[in-house]
This record gives sequence, C-alpha cells and structure tokens, in this order.
Amino acid sequence: MRQLNVALLGLGNVGRALVRLLQAKSAELQRSYGLGYRITGVASRRLGWLVQPAGFDIAELLNADAVGPDSDRVQDIHQWLDRVRPDAVFETTSLNPESGQPAIDYLRAVLSRGAHAISANKGTVVYGYEALTESARSAGKRFLFEATFLDSAPVFSLFRETLPGARLRSFSGIFNSTTNVIIETMEAGRGFAEGVRAAQELGITETDPSHDIDGWDATVKVCAATRVLLGVPLLPAQVSRQGIRDLQPQRLQTARAEGKPIRLVARARLEGDDLVVATVRPEVLSATDPLAGVRGTSLAVHFELDVMPGLTIISHRPNLMSTAYGLLADFLNALR
Amino acid sequence: MRQLNVALLGLGNVGRALVRLLQAKSAELQRSYGLGYRITGVASRRLGWLVQPAGFDIAELLNADAVGPDSDRVQDIHQWLDRVRPDAVFETTSLNPESGQPAIDYLRAVLSRGAHAISANKGTVVYGYEALTESARSAGKRFLFEATFLDSAPVFSLFRETLPGARLRSFSGIFNSTTNVIIETMEAGRGFAEGVRAAQELGITETDPSHDIDGWDATVKVCAATRVLLGVPLLPAQVSRQGIRDLQPQRLQTARAEGKPIRLVARARLEGDDLVVATVRPEVLSATDPLAGVRGTSLAVHFELDVMPGLTIISHRPNLMSTAYGLLADFLNALR
Repeated sequence: MRQLNVALLGLGNVGRALVRLLQAKSAELQRSYGLGYRITGVASRRLGWLVQPAGFDIAELLNADAVGPDSDRVQDIHQWLDRVRPDAVFETTSLNPESGQPAIDYLRAVLSRGAHAISANKGTVVYGYEALTESARSAGKRFLFEATFLDSAPVFSLFRETLPGARLRSFSGIFNSTTNVIIETMEAGRGFAEGVRAAQELGITETDPSHDIDGWDATVKVCAATRVLLGVPLLPAQVSRQGIRDLQPQRLQTARAEGKPIRLVARARLEGDDLVVATVRPEVLSATDPLAGVRGTSLAVHFELDVMPGLTIISHRPNLMSTAYGLLADFLNALR
Repeated sequence: MRQLNVALLGLGNVGRALVRLLQAKSAELQRSYGLGYRITGVASRRLGWLVQPAGFDIAELLNADAVGPDSDRVQDIHQWLDRVRPDAVFETTSLNPESGQPAIDYLRAVLSRGAHAISANKGTVVYGYEALTESARSAGKRFLFEATFLDSAPVFSLFRETLPGARLRSFSGIFNSTTNVIIETMEAGRGFAEGVRAAQELGITETDPSHDIDGWDATVKVCAATRVLLGVPLLPAQVSRQGIRDLQPQRLQTARAEGKPIRLVARARLEGDDLVVATVRPEVLSATDPLAGVRGTSLAVHFELDVMPGLTIISHRPNLMSTAYGLLADFLNALR
C-alpha cells in the first residue's frame, strides 16, 4: 500500500468536487491501486498557504468557512512545498487568459520538487505547455491537464495512449457551453440577455461572461489543443475570432427549423508542417455534421486523421464531478 | 532499430489494407518507433499456410493472384509458426458467429509461441476473450482487438488506458452500418430491397446480409463490449434481439420528419454486480439523443459512467484503411 501526499492549489468549486470524489473513491483506490492518500496542503488566494502534515479533515475542506484554524500558514509556495511534501499537486486556480501566471510558476516549482503537476487551468497549457512538459521530463514526473479541454472527456490521453502512428490533420469543436445555451435560448424565440441569464443560472459562465460570448474561452481551448495535439505553438491573438453578439434570434430560429443550426465553432487545421489556421466563429452546420446535434452544456470535438476519416468525442452535460474526474484520471495515469 | 517478423492470418480486404498501411507508414515506424518489419508468413483458406523467411514482397501480397509461387507451403499453423517465427500475428479471418473457431485456436497457438495476437474478428472476443487474455498473460504478450468494434475508433484502448478508476454502468450504440443505410434509404421514400442493395454497393454488408438485418452483427458486438468493458460474460442468445425487417417506410419517414429518427440501437446495462440486460432493436431516438445524428456508414457508442454523465465516440464513415489502422494501433500498443 502506497501512502501519498496530495495538495490542492485552488479550492473553489472544482477543488471541492475533487475532494468529494477522492473521498468517494478512496476504498476503490485502495482496493484497485493499492493507494492511500492524505491532503497535506491547501492554498488559495483567500486562505493563503496552509499546511497540515497529518492530513486535512475532509469535512473541513468541504466547508469553505471552516478551513484552516488548526493548520500552519506559511508565506509562499516554496515554504509550502517544503512542508507539504506532495507527491502530486492539483492546480485549479482561476484562468489568467493573458499569461497563464502565476499558475505556471507554481507548477514549475511543484515539478522541480518532484511532484506530479495536474492542472484544470487552460492558461498553463496555452502559455506553459512546452516549459512545463520539459520540467516534468527533467524531474521524471508528469504535467497533465485533461480537465482543461472537454471537462474530463479523455482527449489528450486519447492521443497520448491510444492513437500511435496516427497523424492529426485538423479538428473542430464546440468548446464553450455558455454560447451554446445562449444560442439555444434564442432559437426558442427568446432574447440574448435571457440566454446569458440561463447560462449563468446553470453556473457555466466564466466570471466575466464576455469571455464566453466573444469567443475567448473557445479561442484559449483551440490554442491549448493546437499546441498539444498538432504540436504547433499558437497564441490567442493568432486565432481569427468572432463571437456571438451579432446573431439575430430570427436567423437562429430559421436555421434551426431548416435543420442547419448555427453554433460557435472552433477549428484548427495544419497547413504544411507547422502552420496552423485557426478560427472561432458562428457557423451554419449541416444536419449531418457531427457537431450539429451537440446541445445545451455538452461539448464536442471532431478530429480528422490521416488514417481515420473522422473521430468525434462528445462530453454530455459535464458537471463538477466529471471535471474533478479529469484530475483524478490524470493522477492515476501519472502514477502508472 | 528493432526488426520484427509479422504474419497475416487471413488476406482479404482488411488484410490487404493492412499491408498497404504498413507500407505507407514504414518510414514513420522507423523514425518514430525505431521499428522495421518483414511479413514472413501469410495464410488463408485459399492460399494455405505460406512461409517466406526473408519477407514477402509487398506488391505480391497486394495482388491476390500473385501470392505464393516462391514461398514454402506447410501443413498447419504449428508448422507455420515454427517457420514464420512471428513477433505479432494479425488475424482477419471471417467471423464464425457460433463459436469463434478456428480463429480462437489459432490465436492461442500464436500466443503460446510468444507472439502478440491482434484480431479484427469479433468471434475471438465473444467466445475467446477470457481464455485468450489468460494465454496472453502467461506468455507475457498481448491479445488486442480494437478493430472489432467501431472499425478502429479507440474504445477498448480508451477504457484500458485513459479512464482509470471510472466504472462503466451502461452503453448504447449504433453498431451496424448496413441497417443504418437501409433505414435511411426507406426514410428517403424507397423500399427495403433498395436499401439492401445500397448497402451492398457500399461493400459494408456481411456475406449474408441477414446477419446485419436481423441484428446478429450488432448482437455479437454488444456481447464483445459487454465482456470486455462491463466484465460480464454474455452470449448472443442472451441478448433480446429484434431486427429491422418489419419497419415500414411510411413510419420511418414520419419519424424522421418529426426529428425523432428510428434506428437499430444496441444497449447493455449492468443491473447489480454481474447481471447485464442487453437489447438490440429498432428504437425511436429523441432529437437530443447523441445517437440521433449518426448517419450512413458511421458508427457510434455512448457510455454512461459513475463519474461522467455521458461520453460518446463516433467513428465517421470508417473505411478499409481505418479498420487496418485499428490493427496497426494494437500492434504499436502491444510493443510499448
């Protein structure tokens, strides 16, 4: 039986969902993987850098207001890592869409101390993929980030583990559920603002919903997937981006009635060896397009490979537990 | 650089597509995997057991009538394996839906001689999964069969490699493209017989199309996936099965017009620890069902897991190359 220390960098909804999932799966982790764990460190902007070498109490972590009274508080990530001695750190801090910082620096420190770095934060992939992957290699550890893309549906691990010798040529997808929900609200004859409220009520919007509406969230995901799966660096500014503000309800209703729905579609295509053309914009989808049936909060990606005409992965109505599972799957894959 | 001997058991359309794919990928296999190969054995009902220790000529293998004049012919699989000395054998013989034989005995011999056994033949999974997996374990080799299910879309490897700690509860899918094409032909106002001809022209029907029409092909796939993914033995006779012979074009047209298409859907659900309830039958799908958009020769499977509300994999218009890629992917995964 291996007894591991894990730590949480970020303790918002996803972090707490991970705590619940680790608890729910703990008997199975012991039985199937011979694995026990203690959560020896927790850190967030609000809580500071907390250390509990004997392991935090789960009930305490699940009640945001109860965290901390019996823990030690240190000053920075270096002191924290010294005391927490993690085997893996789960990073779920909020996205910095301009630079991915400070999460990238944190994860570099995590890896250099010999712990696996597992992230649910797209910014670490878009701005830090090469550097963090290299840090992981030098440390003999893993930098993994399945939860960043389709909310835990296996995509990065799919290419890493199941498609040897295949070459990806292009991908397209519906990567943002807020815009999907807004468009569907308008297809049903209601207004844009109502659509935004519907998405907010589902709890799926970014803190600033214009990140969704103007296509930034989908753009960041295109960049992450392009870097990792096509192997080409791509920054958000290089993506031709158009949001959904100008879509008219009448046009959306007509398109849906004709069976050719309009959706915010993200695309990237390899042109030559290292040029990628990427777009995020509203598109009319044909009824037979694999993305046309993706509804509500579901997310999807469609791949074209040299050896396969098309492969679509759809994540249906992902929730906090499934996002947390993306982190758990990375953790178990890192330990293999 | 590793130099491996591979052998082909079966040399029909899929076997020849594999020869073409191995040839097309040979530079990449050398560069990315440090791997060279020779095809030292070929066997089929028509050709007998052929051996060419220096490696068959690719052009010869691609021309069915040219195979064999300079090869040695032996009497049975044991003599063949003695001479061929394979590191991996690709088995693409035709399905025996009653017993999976003689393919299972062949693959057992392959594994016991220390070669990986890679199969595109559902019968080996339905009737031989446990025994062949056990033979592979004793031999320190692999029995893999990705090409049997969704024509090469990664499904078995997805569960093996990317979804640790997750529990599958149920799956549903469109596993047979012949019935899909027949139904779409009738949705377009034409008759059942025309649908059968359309499928035959696409080259997708089983030798006896009643295997498709009466749901046998989908049933065999449900049994294969249930055994491997749900871990419960299930035989074709235990599946509640209804084919598509009684569907009326008028009803199919109306359903399609209402956006609720009828399809031959296969389902399996775990009830308790080791009871599986499985059906193959025409079902009315809601417009939001992930299977509702699957058209033509495409195949799809939808999974429900304890940690994920839904995960759909769609293989779009698979072709001989993509089926052959399923075999190649298994080969490269076996060598890791």
